[in-house]
Amino acid sequence: MPILERCDTKAVARLTLNVPEKLNPLSDEMLAALQSELDTLAEDRSIRAVVIAGAGKAFCAGHDLKQMTAGRAAEDGGKAYFADLFARCATMMQTIQRLPQPVIAEVHGIATAAGCQLVATCDMAIAAEGTRFGVNGVNIGLFCSTPMVALSRNIPRKQAFEMLTTGQFISAERAAELGLVNKVVPADQLSTETTALAELVASKLGAAVKIGKEAFYRQLEMGLAEAYAFTGEMMVENMMYRDTEEGIQAFLEKRSPDWDQ
Amino acid sequence: MPILERCDTKAVARLTLNVPEKLNPLSDEMLAALQSELDTLAEDRSIRAVVIAGAGKAFCAGHDLKQMTAGRAAEDGGKAYFADLFARCATMMQTIQRLPQPVIAEVHGIATAAGCQLVATCDMAIAAEGTRFGVNGVNIGLFCSTPMVALSRNIPRKQAFEMLTTGQFISAERAAELGLVNKVVPADQLSTETTALAELVASKLGAAVKIGKEAFYRQLEMGLAEAYAFTGEMMVENMMYRDTEEGIQAFLEKRSPDWDQ
Amino acid sequence: MPILERCDTKAVARLTLNVPEKLNPLSDEMLAALQSELDTLAEDRSIRAVVIAGAGKAFCAGHDLKQMTAGRAAEDGGKAYFADLFARCATMMQTIQRLPQPVIAEVHGIATAAGCQLVATCDMAIAAEGTRFGVNGVNIGLFCSTPMVALSRNIPRKQAFEMLTTGQFISAERAAELGLVNKVVPADQLSTETTALAELVASKLGAAVKIGKEAFYRQLEMGLAEAYAFTGEMMVENMMYRDTEEGIQAFLEKRSPDWDQ
Repeated sequence: MPILERCDTKAVARLTLNVPEKLNPLSDEMLAALQSELDTLAEDRSIRAVVIAGAGKAFCAGHDLKQMTAGRAAEDGGKAYFADLFARCATMMQTIQRLPQPVIAEVHGIATAAGCQLVATCDMAIAAEGTRFGVNGVNIGLFCSTPMVALSRNIPRKQAFEMLTTGQFISAERAAELGLVNKVVPADQLSTETTALAELVASKLGAAVKIGKEAFYRQLEMGLAEAYAFTGEMMVENMMYRDTEEGIQAFLEKRSPDWDQ
Repeated sequence: MPILERCDTKAVARLTLNVPEKLNPLSDEMLAALQSELDTLAEDRSIRAVVIAGAGKAFCAGHDLKQMTAGRAAEDGGKAYFADLFARCATMMQTIQRLPQPVIAEVHGIATAAGCQLVATCDMAIAAEGTRFGVNGVNIGLFCSTPMVALSRNIPRKQAFEMLTTGQFISAERAAELGLVNKVVPADQLSTETTALAELVASKLGAAVKIGKEAFYRQLEMGLAEAYAFTGEMMVENMMYRDTEEGIQAFLEKRSPDWDQ
Repeated sequence: MPILERCDTKAVARLTLNVPEKLNPLSDEMLAALQSELDTLAEDRSIRAVVIAGAGKAFCAGHDLKQMTAGRAAEDGGKAYFADLFARCATMMQTIQRLPQPVIAEVHGIATAAGCQLVATCDMAIAAEGTRFGVNGVNIGLFCSTPMVALSRNIPRKQAFEMLTTGQFISAERAAELGLVNKVVPADQLSTETTALAELVASKLGAAVKIGKEAFYRQLEMGLAEAYAFTGEMMVENMMYRDTEEGIQAFLEKRSPDWDQ
């Protein structure tokens, strides 16, 4: 059984972290599998939305601490290995953000440390009632410094600081209040809800979503004037798509668009 | 009847988008009218707060799609026209932010696409119960890339991403929760409430509000140290105003200030 | 009686602003006392969390307006004094953020102007029910330009703008909703709650909290790629601490860590 399962339904790809007995850790193997699958998806025009879920009783419990500890056996005490590990993890996270397709986290059980970072990194997230979120590395003396990059770009800073320094969990409802997830649903509807959201997004014009998603994150790092200059260019490019011309025409004629996509 | 009405009451100017049969679109003419009126207001020391409202059943439904479609008839398929249109729109939005006076959006019915951007761009906003907000260009294949610049600087990113890629509306209450509007009031009190807020702001020392509003947006784009250096200078400048000296003196003497403004 | 009291209990230092008859203003003397105490704490490895509280009926009412007004007697009308005052205040605020230990504001009564800035600047804050927050300098003609630097990095922008230009207070509950405080508790439990939070943070590995706090604020000012590169390095450094190795080992062996700290 693969550690990362992929199952496509129409234009939606579902990736399932599948090492449930270890709470789906982001081990070297899992990071490589995710990176490989994401790189493949980036080139796959038939897929227009991606769901990331976890098998078993939790979404993801972060890095694989046993594997990390084994890395200490190297001559440098693991320093080079750790640097490489965090670089690979950060690359995978940024690949999610750069993926042309929207990525939705389907979260249940727990999402901790790099698992919480994965939720924060996905474009959207839906959580089952009862899910708990934490960046609790501080409890074992390892501050969640890389997870906080994603977390602190999702929720207000005092609340992020509290999670990071107390190591305490927050509930799914609190995560929704703070902005970490879009919605909380009963556990037995979780998969139905993420699928519905993915299909809704997948029903839009893929080229428009692609240009929009890329612009979304890029403009967030710009000042206002630069952001407007940049997104104005994106709007012009988007306006020149034949499918967009058809979409607007159909709207004006009160009919459904006939898209090539 | 002008497409943009201006009505002044004491120190408050009220601008009303007035093409109700089309849901007050930001057409070429409306953008020009807004730009012209804002440029005039910027020089008008007698006005100390501005309200922007919409006539008829909606606040503003965004750009004028018929006019945009007509623009495709040009030799370049409309490319130059679209680039100019989005540039003019972005300039108008940034003029609101640079206006010395606070600008309050008075929102009812719907505020979609560039209409939602207008709400996000105003310094403050009050919405009537029942108002719906959307950046739903994605539904017709045109991602709301410029509106998202303003939107994503008002609300958390996962919630902004959801609105942009699903094209779904949010309610006035949800808009208030997310930070897009300051307050939701019954429809029949909307105008009373925005007027009260405008008059409250207009009652403050205009020079202090002017220097403060400008500093507000400028410091948001700076790192912490630079922001403190910059706003420190603004505080010193503000302290040297005669009306500020009088304001502080009056406070210490527990009396009302006698301001020249 | 000192204007700033320090009382240590185990690893927690409590600083109490102690000029209750004036609502604990950030006078020249108070700023100097805070700066001095913070500089001392920065070097004190035995302290792992700091609480800042106010004696009497309020937390802090901002700058000392009488003292500021007296400064106008100088030949330049106070210009040089004001520039120096705001610079010293900004330095003190940034010292809190740069302090190795987390700093918790214990807020009651009122927190206004630079007093509200102090709350916004602390890493975390707990407020008593009934506390009111305001950046109300605009009411006397002095826009709270420096306080807004901290405030606008804690709460959404429309809500910050409203507080700054209307001069109106918000309640403790509203402050919690907006992100300005972490928690609201009954007044008679305020000190118990801040102490519990401080002790919880102090129980973590100090070196990890130190590296994490510093990285928290630095990465917030970076773009995503730079933030990941930077925090990746911090994670590697953190992994090489002997106490972190022990913390992870203890976790894997399901026992309590035996830390040197």
